Amino acid sequence: MTRHTLLVHAHPRSDSLTAQVADLAHARLKDEGGTVDVLDLYAEGFDPVLRPADEPDWEDREKRYSPEVHAHMDRILAADDIVIVFPVWWMAPPAVLKGWIDRVWNYGFAYGRSKPRLAAKRMLWLALMGNPAEEIEHLGLSTVLDTQLRIGVSEYCGIKDSSVRIVYGTELSGVAKNLRSARVAELLAAADRIVDEELPR
Amino acid sequence: MTRHTLLVHAHPRSDSLTAQVADLAHARLKDEGGTVDVLDLYAEGFDPVLRPADEPDWEDREKRYSPEVHAHMDRILAADDIVIVFPVWWMAPPAVLKGWIDRVWNYGFAYGRSKPRLAAKRMLWLALMGNPAEEIEHLGLSTVLDTQLRIGVSEYCGIKDSSVRIVYGTELSGVAKNLRSARVAELLAAADRIVDEELPR
Repeated sequence: MTRHTLLVHAHPRSDSLTAQVADLAHARLKDEGGTVDVLDLYAEGFDPVLRPADEPDWEDREKRYSPEVHAHMDRILAADDIVIVFPVWWMAPPAVLKGWIDRVWNYGFAYGRSKPRLAAKRMLWLALMGNPAEEIEHLGLSTVLDTQLRIGVSEYCGIKDSSVRIVYGTELSGVAKNLRSARVAELLAAADRIVDEELPR
Repeated sequence: MTRHTLLVHAHPRSDSLTAQVADLAHARLKDEGGTVDVLDLYAEGFDPVLRPADEPDWEDREKRYSPEVHAHMDRILAADDIVIVFPVWWMAPPAVLKGWIDRVWNYGFAYGRSKPRLAAKRMLWLALMGNPAEEIEHLGLSTVLDTQLRIGVSEYCGIKDSSVRIVYGTELSGVAKNLRSARVAELLAAADRIVDEELPR
């Protein structure tokens, strides 16, 4: 069966490591015969600010949200798998991605039904973190992303088959300039291994 | 000594409980003789999407960011105390507030100096959470906000005197209509006690 993936990514520069990892996931998904809908939140100019039109109405799970939000809901519904590639800023996704969740993963669509609509999907949160793994462990921050995204978002929406995976050490300013391209290759290889392990066939 | 507070709040509706709690904090701060700079992120139309102009340059901590960001940095620098009132969406601040941190709490300003510029400030993160406390505990989510905001933001920027405090149970759809005004009064009283306990004199 051909699988269809919604591949979301969020970084201000199109030459970012985030974009390169998204490209790599895209190529792999296509190589395996799947179809891919790429959602580059920056390039599409997604507005992450939730306004009253998209506020949940706890007394109306059939509420009609803004047209932009319904268009994004349709893209989610069409996907078998959802892959989200993003840099970690302040132990969390960038605002543009947070706002995509705030607005689109809304009441009556993503949660709030006895039979969750998104439950059968597979979800991979692929996070690029500037710090090395040791530093994050030392700060006691290593479980925050997993709790917030896998438990707090995916599982809350009934999606059991979801993972948060982290590529650590993506910040290169401490790496000598002549070693940087080798480091980038290592980081991309690490991301590729994660995609290989996590994406269903 | 007169204290100056930057009072940040973030909610799409001006009649929200968030706005009412911000008003209450504002009134109390003024009653005590302080001065207050109110930053309503929605009303000011703050754009939370970080673009290349505001990307940190790890090799230049003196980087000049966008004018909007420097204007916000000046408002932070002017404050003795920073109070941030917000609803919890997906175990985290709304995108507009996340992006205020992404863009304004930037490298060379909020962190990345041997002598942190913001270290002497007092910070209160005052969160309004729809769920009752028991539900949050049950989901294992109770420490996420504290880790992300107090440790991950304030402490990371050298601010030791900071708290995350939560007003639980702000979602009223499960409360009978004739009991809601009494519930709102209870919630505002809970917020007022927190402000009273947390704000320095």
